[in-house]
Amino acid sequence: MKILVQKFGGTSVGTLERIENAARKVIKAVESGYRVVVVSSAMAGETDALIETAHRISEFPNEREMDVLLSTGEQKAVALFAMTLRKMGYPAISLCGWQVPIVTDDVHTKARIRKIGTQRIRNLLEEGYIPVVAGFQGVTETWEITTLGRGGSDTTAVALAAALRADCEIYTDVPGVFTADPRIVPNAKKVPHISYEEMIELASLGAKVMQIRSVEFAAKYGVRIHVRSSFSDEDGTWILPEEEVMEKVVVRGVTVETKESRITVVRVPDRPGIAAKIFKALGDAHIVVDMIVQNVSHEGYTDMSFTVSKTDAPKAEEIVRKVAQEIGAKEVVRDDRVAKVSIVGLGMRSSYGTAGMMFDVLAKNGINIMAISTSEIKISCLIDEKYAELAVRELHEAFIEEGEEIKVEDEKGKGS
Amino acid sequence: MKILVQKFGGTSVGTLERIENAARKVIKAVESGYRVVVVSSAMAGETDALIETAHRISEFPNEREMDVLLSTGEQKAVALFAMTLRKMGYPAISLCGWQVPIVTDDVHTKARIRKIGTQRIRNLLEEGYIPVVAGFQGVTETWEITTLGRGGSDTTAVALAAALRADCEIYTDVPGVFTADPRIVPNAKKVPHISYEEMIELASLGAKVMQIRSVEFAAKYGVRIHVRSSFSDEDGTWILPEEEVMEKVVVRGVTVETKESRITVVRVPDRPGIAAKIFKALGDAHIVVDMIVQNVSHEGYTDMSFTVSKTDAPKAEEIVRKVAQEIGAKEVVRDDRVAKVSIVGLGMRSSYGTAGMMFDVLAKNGINIMAISTSEIKISCLIDEKYAELAVRELHEAFIEEGEEIKVEDEKGKGS
Repeated sequence: MKILVQKFGGTSVGTLERIENAARKVIKAVESGYRVVVVSSAMAGETDALIETAHRISEFPNEREMDVLLSTGEQKAVALFAMTLRKMGYPAISLCGWQVPIVTDDVHTKARIRKIGTQRIRNLLEEGYIPVVAGFQGVTETWEITTLGRGGSDTTAVALAAALRADCEIYTDVPGVFTADPRIVPNAKKVPHISYEEMIELASLGAKVMQIRSVEFAAKYGVRIHVRSSFSDEDGTWILPEEEVMEKVVVRGVTVETKESRITVVRVPDRPGIAAKIFKALGDAHIVVDMIVQNVSHEGYTDMSFTVSKTDAPKAEEIVRKVAQEIGAKEVVRDDRVAKVSIVGLGMRSSYGTAGMMFDVLAKNGINIMAISTSEIKISCLIDEKYAELAVRELHEAFIEEGEEIKVEDEKGKGS
Repeated sequence: MKILVQKFGGTSVGTLERIENAARKVIKAVESGYRVVVVSSAMAGETDALIETAHRISEFPNEREMDVLLSTGEQKAVALFAMTLRKMGYPAISLCGWQVPIVTDDVHTKARIRKIGTQRIRNLLEEGYIPVVAGFQGVTETWEITTLGRGGSDTTAVALAAALRADCEIYTDVPGVFTADPRIVPNAKKVPHISYEEMIELASLGAKVMQIRSVEFAAKYGVRIHVRSSFSDEDGTWILPEEEVMEKVVVRGVTVETKESRITVVRVPDRPGIAAKIFKALGDAHIVVDMIVQNVSHEGYTDMSFTVSKTDAPKAEEIVRKVAQEIGAKEVVRDDRVAKVSIVGLGMRSSYGTAGMMFDVLAKNGINIMAISTSEIKISCLIDEKYAELAVRELHEAFIEEGEEIKVEDEKGKGS
């Protein structure tokens, strides 16, 4: 039994006409020999409307009830989807999270999947039915409704594909993953294949094609994902185990993130425990810190910079200001006008000089680098926000458009 | 543990403000010492909107999916209701039909309750929670979502009250049951107490305060129901076992029904099996026949009249026309301009002359009676539609406004 999980996002089921369009994709797969399991998000706008209603009742609506409320969005969508397939002559059966069941922990509004019962779906598939599963929702061991957090329908789809040993198609409103944001870089190209690791780095940087957690899930279970547009028949981007990615290029994509602020603590006494003091205070306030840079110390003092999301920045500044006083730092400076440009690619691991080339491209364009952070497959530079788009365009030109010649051929880990 | 089931209809939870108003009723009951179980309908308009959406997909949407779709209405309402109670400082927990569970048969869109699990609700009550149960919905033994048909939330409430041996308050948008439609009879009075039997006869005749099936259910299990307005604190109408109804009057109420048509088969050969032939044909077409009148025969022929709902009338006429040809009847006449006026009251059973008085009132006002049907506690007359309101007003005046003196005192079956 060749099983395919097809997931449709909110815009792909945003109207009855679009549901019909999505149903046609399902039928096409069925007619080409697949047993198809559909996963659907709520119709576009539905979840936001429900959240807004809840917030009219209370600033902090009860989270258990929030899940009961929000899960109605997907439930409605799968009923309409199944009705549509039936009208088109294909026997479909909708399933809520608790009917599958998709069993989760009991952390309401951001539950994690613990296990998936596949027997009912397998039975339905064998009897020739098309199960239409509500994304985003699950049920606890004690029969409480849970939801998986924003974008959780992707996780539902990937988890189902893993449980059923199926491939997974994610239908969305973009044609796939691009080498850069096409609004900034008109020459950006669609990437035909990308590894989980590259996708995770790109996703967290803003190329929001798929929910990051679902890609991690896919990586863990080796689920092959095809992200594609529900408004065309073109191939999109395959997200695959590293060894299956066809061309290994040094740089897969260039991204930019402007939603962060930089906070610098100036002239910090360079003593053990100082950094811990600052970041513990931020952690206690549930503030997520991204880049952290500490320069070498001069005469027992150092400067320490870090970035946080712009929304957290005022609070972070306030907290750090207090700590700065305690530890005797000179001052705290906040800069909201920063951007983080990054290049991501598996090939970096086996290629030298990439960082140098990146700094060179920025320097040539008169762009000062405020901070640098690197991972195995990513290099990020913090720069002045006003150069953000220029930097992305220049890096894209250097690494992607002209960079074909530096493709690496010596990939490791080929095969399984 | 003194338990009270409070059910709120669609208009009573039609907006967030109204849900808050309903929550205040719950809190009042809690503060006065009750353990309260709330049952909520979908917010007014919600179910109709969902039905309309489904019908945009298909004229006959799959009924299983229809139930999945419609049940989201109540699910949304109970989540918002529970959130509201929590915001007001009272611990509430919403429960879908499958979470209670309210187990039904598998007749989608009009399922019947088979059993109710009360353990979870009892546990919640003992722990001090207010369970807020989604009305209208249930679950089959095989975990399929079902709905109980229009007005099914009343049935949920009454069934829960029966299972929990609790009293039941039905909050709606009218202050109670009246002796006649106040729009027709300005002198109509609210009835403080009414028996199940009277209520059933009144409900089926158009005094649509509560779903008829739920009153039958209440009668079966002896559930005491208080129907009242959610927009005032006034007492409404208690629907009670006959022996608990305080004043036994001859006529409890006067109703009129104008949604029926009369069909007459003229000059039917008076032979055994002829009536069966006509009504079997109608039954096969799922047409419900209400009044049936056959006059005494003359020279081997008789006229046969019956009423059906106006919507079924054209189809019924067509069917009967065919049968009429077969059996050699002279002709078939359809009259859409008829009204059925009825008087209802337990006292009729032990009082004589009520029918005669009714016919007299109609005759005095020049109203011709086309057909008569009677039950133990009801007399109905079919009349020309144009006299409908006049008839109701005159009957109300004769039996209710001036009729105090003919109250019956010799009631039977007093006590239990």
